[in-house]
Amino acid sequence: MHYFRYRGNVLYCDSVRVKDIAEKAGTPVYIYSHRTLIEHYRKIKNAFASLRPLICFSMKSNSSLALCRALVKAGSGLDIVSGGELFKALKIGADPGKIVYASVGKTPDEISRAIKAGILFFNVESIPELCAIEKMCGRLKKRAKISLRVNPEVDAHTHHYITTGTQENKFGIDIDTVTKIFRQKDCYRHLDIVCLHVHIGSQITESGPFVKAVRKVSSLIRLLRSEGHKIDYLNIGGGMGIVYRKERPQTAADFAKAVAPLIKKLGVKLILEPGRFISGNSGILVAKVLYVKKSKSKNFIITDAAMNDLARPSLYGAYHEIVPVHRSSSSRARMKYDVVGPICESGDFLAKGRRLAAVKEGELLAVMGAGAYGFAMSSNYNARPRSAEVMAIGRNFYVTRKRETYADLVRGERIPGVLK
Amino acid sequence: MHYFRYRGNVLYCDSVRVKDIAEKAGTPVYIYSHRTLIEHYRKIKNAFASLRPLICFSMKSNSSLALCRALVKAGSGLDIVSGGELFKALKIGADPGKIVYASVGKTPDEISRAIKAGILFFNVESIPELCAIEKMCGRLKKRAKISLRVNPEVDAHTHHYITTGTQENKFGIDIDTVTKIFRQKDCYRHLDIVCLHVHIGSQITESGPFVKAVRKVSSLIRLLRSEGHKIDYLNIGGGMGIVYRKERPQTAADFAKAVAPLIKKLGVKLILEPGRFISGNSGILVAKVLYVKKSKSKNFIITDAAMNDLARPSLYGAYHEIVPVHRSSSSRARMKYDVVGPICESGDFLAKGRRLAAVKEGELLAVMGAGAYGFAMSSNYNARPRSAEVMAIGRNFYVTRKRETYADLVRGERIPGVLK
Repeated sequence: MHYFRYRGNVLYCDSVRVKDIAEKAGTPVYIYSHRTLIEHYRKIKNAFASLRPLICFSMKSNSSLALCRALVKAGSGLDIVSGGELFKALKIGADPGKIVYASVGKTPDEISRAIKAGILFFNVESIPELCAIEKMCGRLKKRAKISLRVNPEVDAHTHHYITTGTQENKFGIDIDTVTKIFRQKDCYRHLDIVCLHVHIGSQITESGPFVKAVRKVSSLIRLLRSEGHKIDYLNIGGGMGIVYRKERPQTAADFAKAVAPLIKKLGVKLILEPGRFISGNSGILVAKVLYVKKSKSKNFIITDAAMNDLARPSLYGAYHEIVPVHRSSSSRARMKYDVVGPICESGDFLAKGRRLAAVKEGELLAVMGAGAYGFAMSSNYNARPRSAEVMAIGRNFYVTRKRETYADLVRGERIPGVLK
Repeated sequence: MHYFRYRGNVLYCDSVRVKDIAEKAGTPVYIYSHRTLIEHYRKIKNAFASLRPLICFSMKSNSSLALCRALVKAGSGLDIVSGGELFKALKIGADPGKIVYASVGKTPDEISRAIKAGILFFNVESIPELCAIEKMCGRLKKRAKISLRVNPEVDAHTHHYITTGTQENKFGIDIDTVTKIFRQKDCYRHLDIVCLHVHIGSQITESGPFVKAVRKVSSLIRLLRSEGHKIDYLNIGGGMGIVYRKERPQTAADFAKAVAPLIKKLGVKLILEPGRFISGNSGILVAKVLYVKKSKSKNFIITDAAMNDLARPSLYGAYHEIVPVHRSSSSRARMKYDVVGPICESGDFLAKGRRLAAVKEGELLAVMGAGAYGFAMSSNYNARPRSAEVMAIGRNFYVTRKRETYADLVRGERIPGVLK
C-alpha cells in the first residue's frame, strides 16, 4: 500500500506530480510520500493498540531528518544503531526516553553520549559490551537501562545477509548466557537489566518465525521471573516484510493477532522496532533514461541512477519494481531490458531481464519501494555526488536534502605540500 | 609487493609506524604507502618502456586527491568515469591531454565539461552516446577525439560483477557495429574516431584473456585500415590482477612480454588503464578491536571498521588478509574468528572463519590490499562518518582526508516548516 499512484497516465506522489518534483530537484532523486509513511506507522500502532506499545522506528532503514522528524511528530520513538543516529535523533528533537540503541560494536564514545542523553535502553549484544557500559556508567556516575538481546536460534528464512537470529551470526546472546548474566546482575552496579530483546532478521513475510522466537523468549522470561528477576519490557524488534514484488507478507493486523496474545499473557511493556515496514514503500528513486542501448543479445536502459544510489539490487540481488513516471497512452510494445547505471562495473544494475513498455531517452522511471536501505546505503562510488531527497506532503513538496555537488566530493581532502 | 612490513613485531608503512598513524588519525583509517604506489606505476611503465605507452591511472579504484596527485606528479595520465572524477582530475592539475573518459552513462553536462576541458579521448560505449557527443561538439563548436570500446566477447574468468568483455554485459560495442560506425564516420563531423578501446574486466590474473582480446582487436584494426580508416591508438584498458591471497598473478613484465609484441606489430600508440594494479596493495584499512565475542559456535572479533568502510567482502565475497599492527612476541594460540563490524546486518563482515593469533580488545588490525575499491566505495550506512585517509611518504605521514564528523552526516538536510 502506498500513495505513488497514477492519475490518468501521470504518476503522483500524494497529490504532487512526480514529474514536477524531478524537474525542480533534478535526477536521480529520492521522493518520499508523507502520507504513506505516517499511515504505515499508524498501521502498526493500531494493530497493537490494545498493548499500547512503544514503537521505535528503525533509523538505519532511513535516517533522513525530515522523514524521522515526521514520525517523531506522529509519536514514534527511534531505534538507533550508532552515535551518528543518536546525533540525528537528538537533532530532530526526539525524546531520549523513547530511544533504544542496538549494535554489536558500540564504541566508548558512543556509549558515553547515549548515557548522557538518557536513552531508554541499550540493546546489549555481549558480555564485554555489558562491561563497557557498566564501566562508562561508573565513570559518569550515571545509571543505564539494559535490554539483553537474546539469540533465539530461530531461522527467519530470509536473505542470509539479513538473517540475525541464528547461532551462526554475530547478533545476540545465547539463552544460557542470558540466564547467567541475570544471576550475576549484582556485579553490574550501575545497570538496570529489565528488558529482553529479540530480533531475528529483516524482510520476513510470515508470522511463524516471530511466534517461535517470542515463545522461546516467553519461556525464558518465566524462568527468570521464577528466580526473582524483574522483566518489565520485551522488545520484539522489527523485520516485518513488505511487498517488493509478489510477496504476500502478513499485514500488521495479522502479525499483531499472532503475537499480541503471547505478549499480553506475559504482562510486559512491548517495544517494536519497525524500519522497512514503515519507510520501505514510502519512497521511490526517480531516474532519467540517458541511453537505450541494444547489444547483440540484450537491450539496456542506461539511467542516471546507479548502484551508488541504490545498492540493494547489487548487494542482495533485490527486486524493485520499475514503472514509467509518464505512462504512454499508445500501446507501446513491451520489451525485455536490463536497467543499469553509468558505473563501470557489471554489478551496477537496478533490474535484469525486466519486461517494460518500450522506453525512450529522456524519459523518467520510478524505482519503487526504495524508501528503506536506499539513500541510507548510498555512496560516492565513481565520484558520483549523492542524489537529492524530496518529501511530498499533501499538495506540496520540499527538498529535504540538497543534491551533493562536485565540491562536496573533495571536502576534507588535503594534498601534502611535498606532492605539489 | 608492498611496503607494509614488520620491523621486529611492529608494522610499518614505508618508514612510519602504523600505530603512530592510528594514534594520530584515529580508527578506522585508510593508510597509503607512497612508495608502493609509485613503484607499481613504474613497474608498468618500465615493463612497456619500449612502447612508450600512455598510462592512465584508473581513478575509480581510488580517487583520493593526494594519491592521484602523487601519480600525476610521477607522469601518469588518468582514466576517469564521471564528471566528478574529471573535476578531481582538474583540481590536482592533471594534464587534460592525458585523460581518457569511460562510462556507459555520460550525461550531457558531463560530456560538455569533458569537451571543454580538452580531454584526450572519450571511450565510447554505444551509438547513442556517439551521437550525444557529436551533438554537444556541434553546439560548443569543438572537436573531440573518440575511442570506440569494442566488446571482444572474451571471458576474463573473474567475478561476474567485474567481467566486462562478454555479450551479456552493458559494456562496449560489438565488432560488426564498430565496423559500421567507421564506415559511416563522415556522419560524425566533429569527431575524430582514431582509437579502439578494449577492457575485459578486473582482477584478471593471467595474460591469456588479454592476448585473446588484443588479437581480436588487432584483426579488426587491420580490417579497418584496409578500408582506409586511420587507427593511431589502441587502449587495452586495465584489469591486471593483484595478490589478495594466494593468487599468482602475472607480473607486469610477464604481461608486457605477452602483449607488447602484438602491439608493436600494429604500430599504434598504446594506452593502458591500470587501477587496482597500482592502488590495490598501496593501501590498508586499520581498525581497532572493540569487542571479542564468543557465541556458542563461533568467535567474533568486532572492529570499529565495517562494510560501510570496506564493501568488498560483502559485495564480492572478497578476501582481504588481516594482520596485527603489533605482533605478539609470545606465541599466542591461533583461533578461528569471524571479523565483523558494528553494522546491524549479517552481511557486515571483513573476514569469515579466519585463523588469527588470539586478539584482545583495543588492539589494532590491518586489513591488507584495501587501496583499490576501498574508500572509493565507502558510505555513511548506519550513519557512520567515513574514515580518515593518511599517506606515508618516507619518514612522514599526512592526513590526506579528515575523518567525517556527525555534522557532515546532515549536511544539506532541511526539515520542512510544517514538520517542526
